[in-house]
Amino acid sequence: MSSYTLAELAEKVGGKVAGNGDCVITSVASIENATAGSICFIYSSKFAKYLADTKAEAVILTAELAAEAKVPALIVDKPRAAYAHITALLYPQYKPEPGIHSSAVIDDSAQIADSAYIGANVVIEAGVRIGDGVYIGPGCIIGRKSELAADVYLHANVTVYYGCSIGENSIIHSASVIGADGFGFEHDGQEWVKIHQVGGVCIGKNVEIGACSTVDRGAVSDTIIEDGVKLDNHIQIAHGVKVGENTIMSNGVGVAGSTIIGKNCMIGGMTGIKDNIEITDNVIITAMSLVSKPLTKPGSYSSNTPIDDTRTWRKNTARFRQLDEIARRVMQLEKTNKKD
Amino acid sequence: MSSYTLAELAEKVGGKVAGNGDCVITSVASIENATAGSICFIYSSKFAKYLADTKAEAVILTAELAAEAKVPALIVDKPRAAYAHITALLYPQYKPEPGIHSSAVIDDSAQIADSAYIGANVVIEAGVRIGDGVYIGPGCIIGRKSELAADVYLHANVTVYYGCSIGENSIIHSASVIGADGFGFEHDGQEWVKIHQVGGVCIGKNVEIGACSTVDRGAVSDTIIEDGVKLDNHIQIAHGVKVGENTIMSNGVGVAGSTIIGKNCMIGGMTGIKDNIEITDNVIITAMSLVSKPLTKPGSYSSNTPIDDTRTWRKNTARFRQLDEIARRVMQLEKTNKKD
Amino acid sequence: MSSYTLAELAEKVGGKVAGNGDCVITSVASIENATAGSICFIYSSKFAKYLADTKAEAVILTAELAAEAKVPALIVDKPRAAYAHITALLYPQYKPEPGIHSSAVIDDSAQIADSAYIGANVVIEAGVRIGDGVYIGPGCIIGRKSELAADVYLHANVTVYYGCSIGENSIIHSASVIGADGFGFEHDGQEWVKIHQVGGVCIGKNVEIGACSTVDRGAVSDTIIEDGVKLDNHIQIAHGVKVGENTIMSNGVGVAGSTIIGKNCMIGGMTGIKDNIEITDNVIITAMSLVSKPLTKPGSYSSNTPIDDTRTWRKNTARFRQLDEIARRVMQLEKTNKKD
Repeated sequence: MSSYTLAELAEKVGGKVAGNGDCVITSVASIENATAGSICFIYSSKFAKYLADTKAEAVILTAELAAEAKVPALIVDKPRAAYAHITALLYPQYKPEPGIHSSAVIDDSAQIADSAYIGANVVIEAGVRIGDGVYIGPGCIIGRKSELAADVYLHANVTVYYGCSIGENSIIHSASVIGADGFGFEHDGQEWVKIHQVGGVCIGKNVEIGACSTVDRGAVSDTIIEDGVKLDNHIQIAHGVKVGENTIMSNGVGVAGSTIIGKNCMIGGMTGIKDNIEITDNVIITAMSLVSKPLTKPGSYSSNTPIDDTRTWRKNTARFRQLDEIARRVMQLEKTNKKD
Repeated sequence: MSSYTLAELAEKVGGKVAGNGDCVITSVASIENATAGSICFIYSSKFAKYLADTKAEAVILTAELAAEAKVPALIVDKPRAAYAHITALLYPQYKPEPGIHSSAVIDDSAQIADSAYIGANVVIEAGVRIGDGVYIGPGCIIGRKSELAADVYLHANVTVYYGCSIGENSIIHSASVIGADGFGFEHDGQEWVKIHQVGGVCIGKNVEIGACSTVDRGAVSDTIIEDGVKLDNHIQIAHGVKVGENTIMSNGVGVAGSTIIGKNCMIGGMTGIKDNIEITDNVIITAMSLVSKPLTKPGSYSSNTPIDDTRTWRKNTARFRQLDEIARRVMQLEKTNKKD
Repeated sequence: MSSYTLAELAEKVGGKVAGNGDCVITSVASIENATAGSICFIYSSKFAKYLADTKAEAVILTAELAAEAKVPALIVDKPRAAYAHITALLYPQYKPEPGIHSSAVIDDSAQIADSAYIGANVVIEAGVRIGDGVYIGPGCIIGRKSELAADVYLHANVTVYYGCSIGENSIIHSASVIGADGFGFEHDGQEWVKIHQVGGVCIGKNVEIGACSTVDRGAVSDTIIEDGVKLDNHIQIAHGVKVGENTIMSNGVGVAGSTIIGKNCMIGGMTGIKDNIEITDNVIITAMSLVSKPLTKPGSYSSNTPIDDTRTWRKNTARFRQLDEIARRVMQLEKTNKKD
């Protein structure tokens, strides 16, 4: 853990100090559970009630709430964004001294920057290139000719297949798999014949991919994850998909083959997206939706049905199976009424 | 495999023997496919028809069905619970002699009980503490300062990040990941800024977590899995979630950030649970539901629509898009009728 | 990469050459992005417009489109199937020279064919049998007494528990787990008691299993995946399930315990299938369906609701909760009308 004075933090995140700027901040906390040395943030007046009693060393808030702070304050326009920057300062990502653990298995033809760290039991195959400042956690496997740009961070037990590239500063969490074969088969009349997947995976800069997620290699062209994309755990990105800049997907989203997703989209958890469609920029999709057609206009989209007690749901869901018939009967009634 | 006489089993599970208590039981089986030396159970009269012809050495059943047994019987109140206890006796969890495999990479500062077993290619980082009788399967990675209490059992290729704790007798299956970063980002107007996740994960006693599941570390406070929780495969527990004692979740459930789930809940497979809500004790949720609001009363809840042939479903689902309009037209008809 | 003349490819896949059969093919491509040396395919007249300008060395197409080809053509009945076969010729699966990497940890009692390749940091436990031509990627763990038949291909970081068998030519991708315990517990009045899972997993020939997928071991009898089954990523096959020959499942499908799925089924992504039911042969299920009852007739089945803008969806979904009531009111209106 690092430590900063409040004034130092203000300078780093571009804010103004109210009160004692020399107080020393060593941790972050929630405003309810804050202790000495911690900084916390509030982003709405809803939490202002905690300001009176908080034990935090300092708080991050907007100018309009500043008057209510009883402890030193860091005044910014976007408290949560300032908080995010401060977490990075106080809790920097763990990075051991550069070097290659003696148990790692490295092919002679691999090029590894001197400033990189290669953990225990890592396997690096032929022709791999590892950039400056890269961290490869224990048990990771990097396949032939893959490339990791500067400051890539792979947590333990990540698998990268051959011929994939990962851009600067990208982070991948454990048990995720980059570059497995896309799911491509053709039935020849008797059985499914595998279509060998000859594209790669190209991941941009500042991407983060959670644990147990998969990005499949392309059938012919690369699967592409653009800069700044953030994927949660258990995500599936199928072959030939392109995910646009700064798009964010919550847990369990599945995107089927060759679909193109725009920039700055927000995809809710456990949403399924059909193959071979296009979703434009700035689309929001709520959790557990099924996207079965292109979405050509920015905006918010949903499917699914609401939770209910099982008894009521059972009745309604039974009616769902009669819905077309019910609609027809309503039209019939309207017709009859008109005749009257 | 172990072996017991029926009388010994009766004593261990607290049941009564009918017939020859000296018969030797070496395996379990289903009543239809049982062979000599095996014990099986029936828990309802529906299966009583198999009693006449079963080749099992013995059967576990309730007093009311006991008269129909043609082979030695173990009479108990809860045949399936007795069967569960017997599976543990006849098929004890595999545990090699204590020791550390020569290929394991162990930091000098780690404290490992003499009675623990550390498998091949395991990596144990600085400050880790491993309790008595722990089993760590091949390829597991245990991050800095994590603690595994007595008799924890990690199957092969489990990843535990730094600063996590796992309680006594808990079991985690392969490719699961404990303590990956919660999915926390804040948009600063240009891009998503990572909120470093500074909480840990705290897993209680007698917990079981299936394969390819993830329990993320907390954003600020720990993510908590209480005693006796059972999670199936492909589960996602997000940052700051708390899962109450003895709650059970089937495959693919996703629980979003900071949600609190009560005790003794049963969550059906592939259910999604929204962030920042509370679900009370003793709630049952059927498979593939979307829980988008708090559930404050015990009981059974559901969402989703029923399977149908695609042709019929397509008609009904098209009507779903007109449902509000249909409802309004029904109200209009009612109004018109009244006027008449 | 390999290379073939067009005439050689025609002979191998059983097609006819139109134009120069001596042109040399070294890669595959899509027709829009093809370059010299590449072969591509078109399977419908929709793509015929690209034939005029393609830079491909040759194209695969049906006799009826052959006249429009400006470059050498391979004429076949099923262009996509021919293309699949050609991808295997041009991009054969990577296989190093047979041998055991010096870092692998192999139990003395394991039997490993001389023609097999065992990668870096692989762990092979007691009694395992590895057949001819098997490839085991880095970091894989093969549990006690499991058997891999000839030409099985395990990508990096696959976990196979004890007592499982995998048939000839089957492929498993990274981070997948074969043979973890089925999810079986019985409540004894106080807590959940584990039912030890004593069955195994039996996987047939020519099966492919994607990344991050799980096939659990049986509670009593084996879990069975028959020949030719293709499973995508993030699949869950629970204990005691049987999946029939040549059935194919897209990403994220979950099949609950003891369910039997027929042959030649196609299960859409993120579909959930209930436990203890039977699905007959030749069933198609569209994406994100919930199969809550047996499907006894071949055909296509669906559930779920369609994507809509969130505002409209919210109104319709609120009405879903009144659906039974709406239906009753329609009936009431019909009754009233009749009386009139």
